[in-house]
Amino acid sequence: MTTPSSDPGLYETIHKRRDVRAQFTGEPVDLEILTRVLGAAHSAPSVGLSQPWDFIVIDDQAIKQKFWEHVQDERQAFSDSLDAERARVFAGIKIEGILESSVSIVVTYDPSRGAPSVLGRYTIADAGLFSVCLAIENLWLSVTAEGWGMGWVSFYREPFLRDLLSIPETIRPVGWLCVGPVTHLEETPDLERAGWRTRRDLEKAMHWNGWN
Amino acid sequence: MTTPSSDPGLYETIHKRRDVRAQFTGEPVDLEILTRVLGAAHSAPSVGLSQPWDFIVIDDQAIKQKFWEHVQDERQAFSDSLDAERARVFAGIKIEGILESSVSIVVTYDPSRGAPSVLGRYTIADAGLFSVCLAIENLWLSVTAEGWGMGWVSFYREPFLRDLLSIPETIRPVGWLCVGPVTHLEETPDLERAGWRTRRDLEKAMHWNGWN
Repeated sequence: MTTPSSDPGLYETIHKRRDVRAQFTGEPVDLEILTRVLGAAHSAPSVGLSQPWDFIVIDDQAIKQKFWEHVQDERQAFSDSLDAERARVFAGIKIEGILESSVSIVVTYDPSRGAPSVLGRYTIADAGLFSVCLAIENLWLSVTAEGWGMGWVSFYREPFLRDLLSIPETIRPVGWLCVGPVTHLEETPDLERAGWRTRRDLEKAMHWNGWN
Repeated sequence: MTTPSSDPGLYETIHKRRDVRAQFTGEPVDLEILTRVLGAAHSAPSVGLSQPWDFIVIDDQAIKQKFWEHVQDERQAFSDSLDAERARVFAGIKIEGILESSVSIVVTYDPSRGAPSVLGRYTIADAGLFSVCLAIENLWLSVTAEGWGMGWVSFYREPFLRDLLSIPETIRPVGWLCVGPVTHLEETPDLERAGWRTRRDLEKAMHWNGWN
């Protein structure tokens, strides 16, 4: 791993991190920083040390444009599923920064990595998929620590994305992540600022020795 | 959030983090620290700001004992599925620290949180489950930053765990995590030290503008 010029605190980074849509500057990314944040993702825990992830970095504008068009269709489909009041709130919410962000990173899951006997995946088939998500959170935090931003786009159909990037049938795309320098990070999540939803108190999420 | 006495660097924490089995001391945990690490988990990104996770903290020894016995059965089942050489290596690997660790934390997923119209989950049903995993990684890193350790146990059947903790049918347990103070963290993952598997080079996981 290359050493970062500074290493902000973990808690500081966790609380600073946002799901970014509107603040990307689009500046070219420094390859050393990009490699370092992918190295942080690659250092995530994984079931049976399977490291079942891959990272497809996308800076080709034509590919981004095709994906962006697909996302607009899926945005419309979601909007059409809402009642009038929710559709009105949703209309004011930006859901992606695909074209404005410097690069996109598609993270994939390969169930065959380390198979057939992945230690810890014997009873829970999804455990490998869970590992990929742990890597994504490491990526999100390290991007934040670098002063960049990241936004997870999930308004897409997996077969479309697989086809767009020639991803084999056996590999599952898990997320399309917009990544790059930002002007700033907001203090409050976009969806809360837009009046879509408020955050839940931690106390309500804590239970002791059983569900009740 | 209560302020930690120190806030170690993000990269430092990512690279220090291990999947802990053998190093737990079993000391009682400080409730302020426990609340702080759960607060870090609760600050994770989530699809549509749904925060679909719950945290069940378990310090009841009888519950831990029952779960431990179940895990031994599943360990044996996995061992029986291996060829002789892999079974020999597996026999030397400790897969959990359920009884030795101070507390266990079961993290669950509630698909009904924010439903029916979870923003960003319209095309990818698993997106809520992915959010829960992001919270688990925040927990893992903050536990590490506190000088504690964490180990994810996945040798169990979900219906058994749901029954053990009276988790409703609609809620999915995602992981059983052993948490608490440790004597130290190893520098190399247990499975690598045991000769089960070696880590993959980051370069092999990186792709540009498509799979190939």
